[in-house]
Amino acid sequence: MKKGNPYGTHRVIEPKGSLPQPATKIDNDMEIYDNEILIDVQTLNIDSASFTQIKEEAEGNTEKIKDIMKDIVDTRGKHQNPVTGSGGMLIGTVEKIGPALEGKTDLKVGDKLATLVSLSLTPLRIDEIKEVRKDIDQVDIKGKAILFESGIYAVIPEDIQENLALSVLDVAGAPAQTAKLVSPGDTVAIIGATGKSGMLCLYEAKKRAGITGKVICLDFSEEGLKRAEDLNLADHYIKVDASNAVDVMEKVSEVTNGKMADITINNVNIPNTEMGSILATKNKGLVYFFSMATNFTKAALGAEGVGKDINMIVGNGYTEGHGEIALQILRESKSIREAYEKLYA
Amino acid sequence: MKKGNPYGTHRVIEPKGSLPQPATKIDNDMEIYDNEILIDVQTLNIDSASFTQIKEEAEGNTEKIKDIMKDIVDTRGKHQNPVTGSGGMLIGTVEKIGPALEGKTDLKVGDKLATLVSLSLTPLRIDEIKEVRKDIDQVDIKGKAILFESGIYAVIPEDIQENLALSVLDVAGAPAQTAKLVSPGDTVAIIGATGKSGMLCLYEAKKRAGITGKVICLDFSEEGLKRAEDLNLADHYIKVDASNAVDVMEKVSEVTNGKMADITINNVNIPNTEMGSILATKNKGLVYFFSMATNFTKAALGAEGVGKDINMIVGNGYTEGHGEIALQILRESKSIREAYEKLYA
Repeated sequence: MKKGNPYGTHRVIEPKGSLPQPATKIDNDMEIYDNEILIDVQTLNIDSASFTQIKEEAEGNTEKIKDIMKDIVDTRGKHQNPVTGSGGMLIGTVEKIGPALEGKTDLKVGDKLATLVSLSLTPLRIDEIKEVRKDIDQVDIKGKAILFESGIYAVIPEDIQENLALSVLDVAGAPAQTAKLVSPGDTVAIIGATGKSGMLCLYEAKKRAGITGKVICLDFSEEGLKRAEDLNLADHYIKVDASNAVDVMEKVSEVTNGKMADITINNVNIPNTEMGSILATKNKGLVYFFSMATNFTKAALGAEGVGKDINMIVGNGYTEGHGEIALQILRESKSIREAYEKLYA
Repeated sequence: MKKGNPYGTHRVIEPKGSLPQPATKIDNDMEIYDNEILIDVQTLNIDSASFTQIKEEAEGNTEKIKDIMKDIVDTRGKHQNPVTGSGGMLIGTVEKIGPALEGKTDLKVGDKLATLVSLSLTPLRIDEIKEVRKDIDQVDIKGKAILFESGIYAVIPEDIQENLALSVLDVAGAPAQTAKLVSPGDTVAIIGATGKSGMLCLYEAKKRAGITGKVICLDFSEEGLKRAEDLNLADHYIKVDASNAVDVMEKVSEVTNGKMADITINNVNIPNTEMGSILATKNKGLVYFFSMATNFTKAALGAEGVGKDINMIVGNGYTEGHGEIALQILRESKSIREAYEKLYA
């Protein structure tokens, strides 16, 4: 049996010397190396920016969506959207465990798990696409995948419905980072706040900012805003086009008496929302870009262009205990759990 | 006289409602609005990532470089490279000051200044390109530019040669941010450390990390490494291809006994160096991406892909006092000043 590298570099076909994520093509042969885990895949949960792009390209046509997805995997050996660069995650059952992992992993054959590393670096083979659930970015397939030794995962908890757990684990980084960033008394603006990731961020922001803080929920969807308000997740609810920077600034200014936000969290899955996030934030404040549609140069030069001394953070999908933190929200809040069961499971 | 917006939104032609930086086309008519400053331009200092791309496209041919630059300004009304999205800065003389700025600005007609906002948002007209200084990314022109009310600038100091001040002010954000991030005892890895921005970062890192810290200088250029070593700017000097992530990791591991860097600063002006920066950094550490060649998605998914809980920061070209901090280095260090006079003035 061939010996593998912990980061999966042995699977990289092109370019040589790179890691699986930036690689343009990886080997998706399903014979495992000694430190790999073979997964029998059940469901793919496509990254929101990626799935939005695929749906647009397919003009909403389900068969076309399937073709685009298969084509991506055929070309790259992994489901990494060539336009957005992003992936998603998967749920499946452990089929084989490489002998080099013995004593190193708690997993056993038959365990149901969700991978918490991106599909953009996970060797994947799709044999058949069984169902496309367009409204929740989930796709049921027949196929196999490989988890590398460094790959993080979560065993699906007993007390939470499988698809719901997958939906929440997919965006676990955002609420977990929010929990770590927000302090009591902070004014927090969350842009794109009524989606799957946004509402979990609202919940954590409100919990951490507390009674002396202020949480501002911004979104374009009236339905979403109403839902967030019904769930009582924020102090202010504002309808705005996040790509209209000046409008975002003026509306945040209004509810903060011109003081602006200490922390702005961007969860919007469309381009050109960097500047609105920057202008919503006070000097010496912080912008956390969780959106995969963020453009690095637009953020960097945007802040400089308006002379704003703010800290801008690249959303890291992983932070210690992120799966635990995100799933815990479903246990703490009955109303969020009910809403997420309806929307995302 | 027409009334202008502080951020220059009145100059945006396309798309409407956006700010000048993300706009694809702005108005470069040189009749000023009431809150604008007209500058008689002497020199453009093109952003390193942008100029590298232009030089490559022109295959090093000076006339082709001129054509590409003129074409960019004709199309966009500003010198924003359509490939990299980045700009640069300029040096010139104040020609006119809008009446609405009276009492608000210390500037007077005839002052020589450097704009510290990016060319990617500055209305610019090029009448003639006089000289292209390919080795230092500077281009002398005959032309005019507009500084918006929110635009930051520095009056050229008396005690520092003009072109040298411009060169240093162009990258002022990087050493200033380094100064603010590094604490005594930190291990700091600087990738792309022997360029204009890199050496100033090395200097600040060494000053702040102090005798108990460790500064690691990584670069591809042997000449650059020798120069940095002659200037005694770091504790270790490593030749490496920054896009070879695994190699970067192994070499940093070697000089840190496997502990890796607390802070990694990326100044590399080529793509695909995100992963090397991530792997060079210890868990809970920090990566500061100053390079405009950084890809947001590659950074975000890269860290997640290898399960690294690190903080990744988008380099903000502006931080309070950045011009002062950068110029001060030239006053503090005679050897850096001499080297920069030779290399960048």
